Formats: sequence, structure tokens, C-alpha cells
Amino acid sequence: MAAILSVSGSPSPTSRTTRLLRHLDDRLRRQGHEVTPLEVRSLPPEALLGAHFGHPSIVAATELFARAEGVVIGTPVYKAAYSGLLKSLLDVLPQYALAGKTVLPLATGGSTAHVLAIDYALRPVLSSMGAAHIVPGWFTLDRDISADGTGSVLPPAAAEALEQVTDQFSAALGGRTGSLAAAG
Amino acid sequence: MAAILSVSGSPSPTSRTTRLLRHLDDRLRRQGHEVTPLEVRSLPPEALLGAHFGHPSIVAATELFARAEGVVIGTPVYKAAYSGLLKSLLDVLPQYALAGKTVLPLATGGSTAHVLAIDYALRPVLSSMGAAHIVPGWFTLDRDISADGTGSVLPPAAAEALEQVTDQFSAALGGRTGSLAAAG
Amino acid sequence: MAAILSVSGSPSPTSRTTRLLRHLDDRLRRQGHEVTPLEVRSLPPEALLGAHFGHPSIVAATELFARAEGVVIGTPVYKAAYSGLLKSLLDVLPQYALAGKTVLPLATGGSTAHVLAIDYALRPVLSSMGAAHIVPGWFTLDRDISADGTGSVLPPAAAEALEQVTDQFSAALGGRTGSLAAAG
Amino acid sequence: MAAILSVSGSPSPTSRTTRLLRHLDDRLRRQGHEVTPLEVRSLPPEALLGAHFGHPSIVAATELFARAEGVVIGTPVYKAAYSGLLKSLLDVLPQYALAGKTVLPLATGGSTAHVLAIDYALRPVLSSMGAAHIVPGWFTLDRDISADGTGSVLPPAAAEALEQVTDQFSAALGGRTGSLAAAG
Repeated sequence: MAAILSVSGSPSPTSRTTRLLRHLDDRLRRQGHEVTPLEVRSLPPEALLGAHFGHPSIVAATELFARAEGVVIGTPVYKAAYSGLLKSLLDVLPQYALAGKTVLPLATGGSTAHVLAIDYALRPVLSSMGAAHIVPGWFTLDRDISADGTGSVLPPAAAEALEQVTDQFSAALGGRTGSLAAAG
Repeated sequence: MAAILSVSGSPSPTSRTTRLLRHLDDRLRRQGHEVTPLEVRSLPPEALLGAHFGHPSIVAATELFARAEGVVIGTPVYKAAYSGLLKSLLDVLPQYALAGKTVLPLATGGSTAHVLAIDYALRPVLSSMGAAHIVPGWFTLDRDISADGTGSVLPPAAAEALEQVTDQFSAALGGRTGSLAAAG
Repeated sequence: MAAILSVSGSPSPTSRTTRLLRHLDDRLRRQGHEVTPLEVRSLPPEALLGAHFGHPSIVAATELFARAEGVVIGTPVYKAAYSGLLKSLLDVLPQYALAGKTVLPLATGGSTAHVLAIDYALRPVLSSMGAAHIVPGWFTLDRDISADGTGSVLPPAAAEALEQVTDQFSAALGGRTGSLAAAG
Repeated sequence: MAAILSVSGSPSPTSRTTRLLRHLDDRLRRQGHEVTPLEVRSLPPEALLGAHFGHPSIVAATELFARAEGVVIGTPVYKAAYSGLLKSLLDVLPQYALAGKTVLPLATGGSTAHVLAIDYALRPVLSSMGAAHIVPGWFTLDRDISADGTGSVLPPAAAEALEQVTDQFSAALGGRTGSLAAAG
């Protein structure tokens, strides 16, 4: 129903954050949404850090945001906040790149001591970019995310919590979630 | 007296933030400190964003932090927080790279509406890195910083405020500030 | 259409924050909502600060929150954050007193330097209380709010900005805003 | 050596936060400091919430802050931040009541998920009040603090961590900590 951009801000090529997002993307697709994944690490570093707003890859990323109705923002927690990689993308987007959009903030980290980074660090930045609706986010412990591609991505309790958060996001976008809730 | 690392997190080659820091460096040198300037933008972007901890330039930057007793951290405010460029450097440093150090946080921006970004966004990150003493910071309006190299860098009132903040930092480092305060 | 609780966290009997909220209440009523004003300062201080959850006035306030679909939270900015008076009410409410609700955060202050207190201080608290949707908030300068009861409450530009924020809140609650937008 | 004000912001008459602070006060006294305990809950609620700056108990509290060189600020974490009780005291103090002072922020809570409340919520408020040096703070789990007066207040690991934080505070105040570190 809705066009969703699903952004991973992890610098790692074998990122648990990214694996979590791709798992969530599947659920959103089953609910009828069109999901476009974006790994910030696939964009050219010199364009991100040099503030090259006119670079084709930055222009393309900006258009992905412009077209999206919903945006998932996932980041590892480093030094009590979002990754510098994620922020370097947000910095080259227009000030109000999230205007009118529904946003789902997600974070991963090694300890529950980092949980508040979503609400105290990430949300104020997303809010400054004009987001119309930032739905309640979710923090997942690194050790709860399976590292390889085998088996389930999350243990049952963490999976259920993430499904609930995903469905609130989907509902805020006007998606159908009820009949598929059991299918997750 | 003290070894100071003065870090600019601005991506711009003609940065007002950087110009402000270099002005402040001069004052610190006149107070007897040894100041090493570091522009994060001079480090290789792919090493910063790819989390290449072993890259020679990252190793060298890490050593600059390790050797410093005092660290000045300057950043433009983008999207209600520090720059992604600055955070990408902090992310590749050890978790406690600021342990035992005295830190002076500075920010620049287009509007006083961004003032609180120092205390709500930048300070918690510096605190998570083990800083022993983060002295009161300062926010300078872009329009108060002269763009070219001619004349004075700041108007009198802004210059005086910055001098006071610099001298508090110097005093916290054990520097002599009194007799030179009039020389700024 | 919706039941709205409009909460002022100002300790002052002649509060500009409260005056601003009552002005906003009028607009919400004209849009068809049922609005209940609540001044935290009218609750017994010893019940608020002594955490007397069973005190009749605290039980009554808790019920007002439970019945509301939308909640306006207005506070002066003191010491870079919301008032202690407002927080003392939030502290005696159930942890998830805002679950499922749409919330509009508003702040007033003497300088635009306090603007970010809404997103960095107030929003994380409201988010921890389970708010389903915290719409973009608004900061109004004290000097823009008329002190007495005569004339208009706000100058035209500030009035228009507040109307837009109010209408976004109303729309998020499912209210009709379009045809009445011109009537504000 | 130094005059220290030790402030508990807990509303509970049997507070673990307060018990933790009184334990810490003992250590500071053994290091030669003069410590004055202050429980915000002992001040008249109507003076705190009504902003009665001239009330004798508020004037007395303001003088306690004015005379102190060091201030310990302890609070339970409620709703992802400091208590409303603590903030209501800070609100009635002068804007720069912490100017020139060394401050130790402490928090207690039921889960490590609240740890960041010290740096993201409490520190910015203390910073806005002009604190010269806010030393690294500490978060203690409720369940680590013994509820009754028998036995030790903290288990060994938590006691050691708190001692280290206390000694950093003492050292920042110019106190002698070395020879007594083993006595705690």
C-alpha cells in the first residue's frame, strides 16, 4: 500500500542491524507495502563526508526519500548515539527530507544501557527533519540477532516485540496488518 | 603547558567552524600550550565510514587523541546535532579515547535555536567516551564569524565570550591565563 | 470529535503558557473536539511531590488522562527543560498513561535558545509513557504572548504557525480542520 | 576540605537513592569534607511548586547551594528522566546556582535501560545552571541497594564503582583521596 524506504546505517558488511532490517522488510512486504532497502555504506564515502549534494548517488538517495511515504531508520548504537555513517547521510539530505512522512526508528547494541539513545539522540534529529509521525521505536540486543543466515533471525520474545512495532508502523501508514499478524 | 588537540568536524573547505578553532588555537598557544590542529575532513572518507580501525590515518588520529591532555571539539550544527563527519571520527576511536582528558565543546550554527545541541547532543557522546572534565562549551552564530581572512574573526562581544570559555578550558588544564587575558 | 486534555505545567497564576493553551483550546473546540483544561498548579502540591497515587485529586487527574484521546502538554522552559511542576504530575501517572494517545508538545520561553528543549527533553519523557503519536510541537516566545486579556493573544506570524501545528494535531486525531482553517 | 551539599531528589521516605547518598556522604566525610545532606522532600511542597522564591525554606536552600563548593545530585529515574521533585527545587534556584561548583550526578533505577538518563536528561539541566565541572556520574540499580539498615549498602562490585566515582569527585574538589581509598 505504501512506499517504504528501509535504511541501514551500519558500516559493517555483515551487519546485524542490516540483517534485522531485511527481516522486517519481508514482513512489511507481506503486508502489501513496496519496500526499497538502502544501505548507507553502499554510497560513496567521499560524497557523504564531503557534502557533495550534487553527486549522482546523493541525488538518487534524496529521491528515494522524496518518494517514500514511510521510512525505517536502523542504526547500531556507538558512543551512546546513532552511527556517524547514518548521520552523514542525513546531513546531505534537505532539511525537511522527512516532511509528511511516517518514520520507524530502530537501534541495535551490545547492552540495554543504550536503549534511551533512540529517544534522546535519534528522534530529535528525525524530528528536526520534519517527520510527521515518528512511531514508537525499538532496541534489539546484538546477541538476539543471529549472525548467519540459518534459522530464525530473532528468538521468539524479541521477534514478537519487533512484529508489534512493525505493525504499529504499518498501521500508521494505513496498511492492513490484522489478518497477517499471525503469519509473521 | 598542556598538549591540546583541536578538532574541527566541519566538512567545508572554507569552514567558519575551522576558522573559529584556528583563532582559538592562537590564544591557547599564547597561553603556553602546544596545540595540534586536526580537520576530520582531511582523513580518508572510506576509512572513516568503513570503520577501518587499522588504517594508518585512523591509527595516527587515535594516537593524537592518546597524546593529548586537552581536546577541543568543534562542529557545525546540522539537523539539530553534531556533524556526521565528526561522529564518524569519534566512532572509529576507542570507546574511552577521552579518558582522563579535559574537553572543550564548541558549536556553530545559523540560529540560536540550535544552542542546546551542545549539551543535549554532543556532551553525552563525549561523556560516553570517558572524558574526565567537559568544561562549559560555547555556541557561535555563523554570521558572527568573518568569512574571509581579513580583519578580526569575531565582533567584540562574541570574541570576549569565546575568550572566557577558552580561559576556563586553559585553567582546567592547569595553564596560566591571568596575565595574558588582556593580550587576546 | 475527539476528547482532548489540555495540560498547562506552569506554576504561575498569570501564566503566558496557560493563556496560550486556552487560546489553542478554543480553536480545537471550533473544530469539533471536546476539550478539558487542566492546570497542574491546581492540584495539591503535597500529593504531587509526595507521590500520593491514591489521593483523590491524583486519581481524578489519572482518569482525565485515561479518558482522553488527545493530550496537549504545555510547559515553560526552565533550566533548559520542562517545569518540575509538569514532571511531578507525569511522575504520579501510570508508566503508560499516554499509551494509544496523540500528544501535542508545546513550550514557551524567553529566548529561542530554548527551542530544542521540546525535542531533547520533553519528547523522550512523553515517549517513555507510551504515546502512540507525538505530533510536531511548537515553541512560542514569551514576548509574543500578550500578557493581559485584551486584544489578540499572538502576533499574526506566531498565530499562523500555532494554527498549523494545532491543525496537524487535530488531523492526527481525525478531526475536520480544512473548512475551519480560515476561521482561526 | 570542601563544603559539599548532598541532595536527594527522591519523594520516598524510605528511599534507596537517599540511603545511597548518605553512604557516600560518610566516605566524603572520611576524606575530610564537610557534608550537608538535603532531602528535597523535606521542603514545603507548596513553596517548591508555587515558585515561592522568597519562602524561608527556599531562601535557606538557596544559601546551602551558594555556600557549597561541591554538590552531589541524586535522583531516581522516573519516566526516562530525573524526578519532578528534584526539578522543582532546581526551578526555584537562581539560573546560575551551580556557577563555579563541582557537581556529581547520581541516579538509581530499576533497569540498566535508564542509564543514559544521567547524561541526556540530568547533565544538560545542571550545565544550564552554570556548573563549572560535572564529573562523570554513576547509575546504581535499585536491587543493588539494601533496603534496610543492616549489613552493607551495596554488593562489592557496585560499592567499588561508586567509590571510584566518589573519589574522582573528591579529587576534582582538591580533596585527599589516596590514603583513604582502602578505608571505604
